[in-house]
Amino acid sequence: MTAIILCNPQMGENIGAAARAMQNFGLNDLRLVNPRDGWPNESAIRMASGAFDSMPTPTIYDTLEDAITDLHYIFATTARTRDMVKSCFTPEEAANESHKKTNQNIGILFGAERTGLLNEEIALAQAIITIPTNPNFSSLNLGQSVLLMAYEWSKHSNQVTPAVEQEQTPATQKDITAFLKRLESDLEEGRFFREENLKPTMVKNIQNIFTRNNLTEQEVRTLQGILSALRGNKTRK
Amino acid sequence: MTAIILCNPQMGENIGAAARAMQNFGLNDLRLVNPRDGWPNESAIRMASGAFDSMPTPTIYDTLEDAITDLHYIFATTARTRDMVKSCFTPEEAANESHKKTNQNIGILFGAERTGLLNEEIALAQAIITIPTNPNFSSLNLGQSVLLMAYEWSKHSNQVTPAVEQEQTPATQKDITAFLKRLESDLEEGRFFREENLKPTMVKNIQNIFTRNNLTEQEVRTLQGILSALRGNKTRK
Repeated sequence: MTAIILCNPQMGENIGAAARAMQNFGLNDLRLVNPRDGWPNESAIRMASGAFDSMPTPTIYDTLEDAITDLHYIFATTARTRDMVKSCFTPEEAANESHKKTNQNIGILFGAERTGLLNEEIALAQAIITIPTNPNFSSLNLGQSVLLMAYEWSKHSNQVTPAVEQEQTPATQKDITAFLKRLESDLEEGRFFREENLKPTMVKNIQNIFTRNNLTEQEVRTLQGILSALRGNKTRK
Repeated sequence: MTAIILCNPQMGENIGAAARAMQNFGLNDLRLVNPRDGWPNESAIRMASGAFDSMPTPTIYDTLEDAITDLHYIFATTARTRDMVKSCFTPEEAANESHKKTNQNIGILFGAERTGLLNEEIALAQAIITIPTNPNFSSLNLGQSVLLMAYEWSKHSNQVTPAVEQEQTPATQKDITAFLKRLESDLEEGRFFREENLKPTMVKNIQNIFTRNNLTEQEVRTLQGILSALRGNKTRK
């Protein structure tokens, strides 16, 4: 289980964006510590595009300590390198690390929009996550930071299914060879191979164009049709 | 070089969010195809939080084809599995793949907010990227999708470029388009398209055969030669 904990979030919009990002990537446990504008919050609900309908209600706490009592391992997200001796991970490393901790409850802390996490908040975490950004343009907002974290976490989750491969029937080698033979003979007739000694290389190069892209049965039929159309015209004249 | 191409973006805010995400993660080449609200755009500039000050001015195009002439390998981002046979990558796989193609100009296409990329836009790409999301809550907005892509791309930006493949010069999209246009017109003449209403789908399927295998410059010349040989015969008669 992984919980997202927003410490003193200021804008409802960012809470909504965080919820939306969590739902996009299969995280469900949102905890709010002392949200400035209270809870529930209209702006949050508007920004969440329905995310709150499909996840448990966020839980609200007065203090960060209260919010993390059931957690075993906590990451603090921070943009700046801090003068603290803790393990420091990229989001990817943190997700990998977290995934190894089977049966542990994991928390990821995010600070207030203006200040980020305070040192005393970071002190409660076991490790730090820093998102590597362009040093000349490093500002990520709260919603974006949660999005990137949830995205990395989802790579280990089964709830998020990758795009499915096509179920088109691939062409057999026999179909492809038949097409290539016909093409070769048509090209022969069209005096494509000007120099006999270069022909084997040219044939090989042409084969290469059509063999390396996993043609489907239907595509080979299309290519056959193309040959007929291009050549057939000649016959018809 | 990697370009982010927004096809028919509707909201200035999303263009601004895309620019900001690009700058966060070190991408600089933003191309806009036919932005609905014109360019420059106040909402975009406001949303970009200064990103436009530190990157080259976005370039504007009337058509997607114009926007990709100098590119060698193009990814189309799409949420749905399409009935098209192309390589399909996660953002991470695509970034890895892209990183191997040293000296190639890479493009990542994003569709309009409401519709996503159209099939004829996707047909111009060599491969598809799908961000794996929670199937029950999969809507990512344009800015978020660009953010995730730029984030994955940035993982390679500090790393030493590996020794790589490809001594062959890849074809530009311009070369490929020229070949496809000629093929289409030859097929038209050869009465390949029996039914006018099926033509767009057939053209798209044919494009797909030739765009997904990363043709080299030499191969496109060979394909042009093949067309001449097949058709030229007719002329000579």
